[in-house]
Amino acid sequence: MTTRDKIQLGHGGGGRLSRELIEGHIAPRFADGPLRGFPDAARLAIGGASLVFTTDSFVVSPRRFPGGDIGDLAVYGTVNDIAVCGGVPKWLSLALICEEGLPIDELDGVLDSIARAASRCGVGIATGDTKVVAKGQCDGLYVNTAGLGEALPGFDLGAEKLAEGDAVVVSGDLGDHGMAVMAARAGMDVGGGLASDTGPVHGLVLAIRDLAPKVRFMRDPTRGGAASTLNEMLGGRRDVGVSLRERDLPFSGGARAVAEVLGVDLLHVASEGRVILVCAPEAASEVLARWRQTPEGRGAKAIGSVTRDRGRVVLETAIGGRRLVDVPQGELLPRIC
Amino acid sequence: MTTRDKIQLGHGGGGRLSRELIEGHIAPRFADGPLRGFPDAARLAIGGASLVFTTDSFVVSPRRFPGGDIGDLAVYGTVNDIAVCGGVPKWLSLALICEEGLPIDELDGVLDSIARAASRCGVGIATGDTKVVAKGQCDGLYVNTAGLGEALPGFDLGAEKLAEGDAVVVSGDLGDHGMAVMAARAGMDVGGGLASDTGPVHGLVLAIRDLAPKVRFMRDPTRGGAASTLNEMLGGRRDVGVSLRERDLPFSGGARAVAEVLGVDLLHVASEGRVILVCAPEAASEVLARWRQTPEGRGAKAIGSVTRDRGRVVLETAIGGRRLVDVPQGELLPRIC
Repeated sequence: MTTRDKIQLGHGGGGRLSRELIEGHIAPRFADGPLRGFPDAARLAIGGASLVFTTDSFVVSPRRFPGGDIGDLAVYGTVNDIAVCGGVPKWLSLALICEEGLPIDELDGVLDSIARAASRCGVGIATGDTKVVAKGQCDGLYVNTAGLGEALPGFDLGAEKLAEGDAVVVSGDLGDHGMAVMAARAGMDVGGGLASDTGPVHGLVLAIRDLAPKVRFMRDPTRGGAASTLNEMLGGRRDVGVSLRERDLPFSGGARAVAEVLGVDLLHVASEGRVILVCAPEAASEVLARWRQTPEGRGAKAIGSVTRDRGRVVLETAIGGRRLVDVPQGELLPRIC
Repeated sequence: MTTRDKIQLGHGGGGRLSRELIEGHIAPRFADGPLRGFPDAARLAIGGASLVFTTDSFVVSPRRFPGGDIGDLAVYGTVNDIAVCGGVPKWLSLALICEEGLPIDELDGVLDSIARAASRCGVGIATGDTKVVAKGQCDGLYVNTAGLGEALPGFDLGAEKLAEGDAVVVSGDLGDHGMAVMAARAGMDVGGGLASDTGPVHGLVLAIRDLAPKVRFMRDPTRGGAASTLNEMLGGRRDVGVSLRERDLPFSGGARAVAEVLGVDLLHVASEGRVILVCAPEAASEVLARWRQTPEGRGAKAIGSVTRDRGRVVLETAIGGRRLVDVPQGELLPRIC
């Protein structure tokens, strides 16, 4: 058996190997359903209601990092997947896998975080499950949340909606979450200037709900970063691409410093409280104005546009060059969420 | 820090320690919502629809056992939690935590099981997530499914509905799942006579949907077995109890043999394809007749009744004695589901 026959860390990294696993092994078995197109959440109709349904497991290491912990990350991550699918989050499930020996005080702290974050988002914990495995069979605590929301009318998102000239907008600095977690893991001192952006984005979606017909795409750029998000967004489209303006990309000083030390491209690094949105060009300034009035969107910026660049994401560099923005091949940043 | 300050295997066993963890640490933080009363699934109203929502993580070891594997178990377990809450299962989420090095062939086998089981239950896989952790950080593969169903009208279940004289009915042999998994783990040869009962029970619920007003309680007796299910069912009620007739309890020969070797009480052992139902006495024969016409309910039996026995579950033994049926204290059978 070769390495290719076994699961590698990169299969969970949000890049090319993740895509191969999903497209080669998962999608073919469940392809008739809402998994087609691989959204982070599914829109479903049940009993006359239009719902949004999503799930995420959280294995982040360390469990506590500057700006958050596995508990609030598990709430915001799932709330955000509902929000960027055009839903209002309502209910979460909470499933814990605990390792024997986990201090109950620490579990209490995570549960407190979950309760605070859920309250902040206006969601309830509806149902749960707790499993315990023996020492050495998980790394302390893994958390799964599934989420249920009510679909907002008017959001009809997807690759097929993209048109040349559409604006690409982001709600704030990119990559702070991934760099804060990696710095914490490495014991790096970033001088207090870097914290995870983990937080809820449903307020950003509600702020522009009446602009929904002008919105083509929304996604929170988590694993694989903005690069993976934008490449995935293009889906199979070969007639459009994306151009990003390097000088407009918002990165914090702390994230830049850590990325330089670790040698990673911040476009590949996860955020956990940001939205990348594509909209009709005439709506961009209104989206930016609305977002900048919210606490979560103060740093919103227009960063690029949809081009005719044949399925490619291209960076227009500050010195006038062009470089391809590809998805990461394997795993740069394991257990980032 | 003492042992009591740390998570123990028993906290996941479905017995007394599980209850302490839920009642002492989880419920107080989320007590205002549908978690009150600790059902295995929550009934929710969203956008005019009446829904059932549930979640379960699966860490069963070994992942393949006589009668099933972690894949179909993850589908049926969640489908069944919806069904016994009076719901028709519609959609599942699927979240995988894979250990680096897991053979992809094995993952494919589990995904095939999931697809077959979902098809058998008429549910779709709506959304998913895949995480990978390094070698030694999980035991091969853990699976979470959350489930969404549509609530059937008429089922109004709960401890407060129980009345003296109500009949206690079970849909088939108890404990086969737990004993089949333990036998497989121990490498015991049971002569081919024992297989897990893992399977869907939603057909049993649909078969009696018009009898819903006569039904007081339904549950699939998983972790902690029938003993935990019935003790939990009584909830805080101190004015009623349950009497079980030992001679009527359905146990397979294979399960009896393994239970004897391992020294466990089959009333503490998990089933994964059974329903324990309590109904008004006049409805019991009709429930039994309907169930016996289904493939899942061929072995249905009336096993006892609701008494005035002050919050206690009592076994009337075959030799005319009475013994208290308590919940297991800690963990008898780790990683049974």
